[in-house]
Amino acid sequence: MLCKICKTKGKREKAVINLRHHKLALCKEHFIEWFEKHTLKTIEKFKMFSKNGKIGIAVSGGKDSLSLWYLLTKAGYETVGIHISLGIKANDYSEKSLELCKQMAERINRPLITFNLPDEFGYPIEKIAQLSGRDSVCSVCGTFKRYIMNKLALKENLEAIATGHNLDDESAVLLSNTLRWDTGYLGRQYPVLLEKGGFARKVKPFCFFTEKEIVSYAILNEIEFMETGCPNSEKATSPVYKQALALLEHKMPGTKLRFYKEFIKKARPIFEAVNKEEIKLVPCEKCGTPTTADVCSVCRILEKVKNAKSREN
Amino acid sequence: MLCKICKTKGKREKAVINLRHHKLALCKEHFIEWFEKHTLKTIEKFKMFSKNGKIGIAVSGGKDSLSLWYLLTKAGYETVGIHISLGIKANDYSEKSLELCKQMAERINRPLITFNLPDEFGYPIEKIAQLSGRDSVCSVCGTFKRYIMNKLALKENLEAIATGHNLDDESAVLLSNTLRWDTGYLGRQYPVLLEKGGFARKVKPFCFFTEKEIVSYAILNEIEFMETGCPNSEKATSPVYKQALALLEHKMPGTKLRFYKEFIKKARPIFEAVNKEEIKLVPCEKCGTPTTADVCSVCRILEKVKNAKSREN
Repeated sequence: MLCKICKTKGKREKAVINLRHHKLALCKEHFIEWFEKHTLKTIEKFKMFSKNGKIGIAVSGGKDSLSLWYLLTKAGYETVGIHISLGIKANDYSEKSLELCKQMAERINRPLITFNLPDEFGYPIEKIAQLSGRDSVCSVCGTFKRYIMNKLALKENLEAIATGHNLDDESAVLLSNTLRWDTGYLGRQYPVLLEKGGFARKVKPFCFFTEKEIVSYAILNEIEFMETGCPNSEKATSPVYKQALALLEHKMPGTKLRFYKEFIKKARPIFEAVNKEEIKLVPCEKCGTPTTADVCSVCRILEKVKNAKSREN
Repeated sequence: MLCKICKTKGKREKAVINLRHHKLALCKEHFIEWFEKHTLKTIEKFKMFSKNGKIGIAVSGGKDSLSLWYLLTKAGYETVGIHISLGIKANDYSEKSLELCKQMAERINRPLITFNLPDEFGYPIEKIAQLSGRDSVCSVCGTFKRYIMNKLALKENLEAIATGHNLDDESAVLLSNTLRWDTGYLGRQYPVLLEKGGFARKVKPFCFFTEKEIVSYAILNEIEFMETGCPNSEKATSPVYKQALALLEHKMPGTKLRFYKEFIKKARPIFEAVNKEEIKLVPCEKCGTPTTADVCSVCRILEKVKNAKSREN
């Protein structure tokens, strides 16, 4: 298959990727151009951030976040990487992840802020989940990551925190929210979450790209990334939604992108309009983070960890 | 596994079915009781029809519609079966289907109205689809069946037409409408379609039952039904949506029922409220059926068939 753009210029270049749902086969040069142009268009369309502020990229060491950091820096944004080291020992997961983030920081010559969870909170994430009596490490991990990212964003005076969430992630979350018709969540799911009452702005510039597109961008730019998923993610439910969407996508290419894009255009505004109840935030009694309860979820988990430990001793 | 209801009465009866998503294992007697009670509850909740009027059951010869006819008659409703014979020769499909409908009519001693499509319109359904230049037999077939059913309902002065659509059908349609965020369709999908401007009332009393539940009801009541699907349905898209939902249901039992029920409760009213544009119906210039265009879709298809035939001769 030949690159469609080269063809229009009378050149014959072999395509390296076939974007089935866009009916677009592209060579390396034009795929990278297409990918970067679309990222910048998404940033602009959703007014994610400007060239005047400092943008924090939440980097895990995976393809999505490292590609995002690389691309935004190349595009001239003032970026800083933020990595949370979770203390996951299996497969040397946390150690290798940190190493890959450091490698990227060096390559693009940008600072990397690291937050060591076991150092700051006393235990690795699995131990915290276990001691607090939670079944799912993933949900505890998500709670802590959001909490830490937000604290760091305020401390570093970031204009926004950018995450590498892709179309597969977003459409899976959307499917999950839709199957339950959770109108509250459906009214809030969006590529931008504006800063509000002590929460930093969060943006997802890759939300319209599939995993396949991002992994191609990473490989073509020789970005080294963690190829194995988190050892704790086996129990997560999102793979089920991803599988169902993959099945639909295979039979009807473009399903995922249409599902998410049409949602943003047609359905989300409808759900947003009926979400009349404003969520009231108050500062956490213990740490000051905005929360809907008296004590925020992280402080509540840490309290349980402390109690469990004192019973052990 | 033992029947849960027998157990509460101190009896030990083996269960014949395990309704995973209801966490309910039941013996033959209690499953039939449960199934019938729930059907009547659905009819009542959605005010589908009364015991004073005549109810037409659209019977195809399949498990859903024959079970529905059997159950409604047993429950004391005044029923009449309506069967459209499509002239499908493959696997003697139409002939066998008609036979099974006649068999049920005899068993429950109720009248069966049959409409022979090739006799009335000159050709079997596949030929009509082909001559009219349509790719999909299924969509042409659906158009004709709705048209004929409506005509017969008015002629026979029926209170409603009941169809055997089940939870698998309804959740697949819902998923299809949702993946496109077709807010118009989403505002209208409901277990009851009220009579309006020349259209008969249409109801789906089995919409909360899975295929598995209905097939069990049919077998336990020794109802003979067509076990092979329509030979034309291979190209239909709904199996893809059903597959995706089956995958989710398998991993998370109850997904389909929750998806459809929560939609009816929480999301449909929201979509209905934003569908401000009233669909304007006018009588078809040729046959008088209500339509949004000057000529209804059946008359337009028949016109194309006539033209194609005159070109052939």
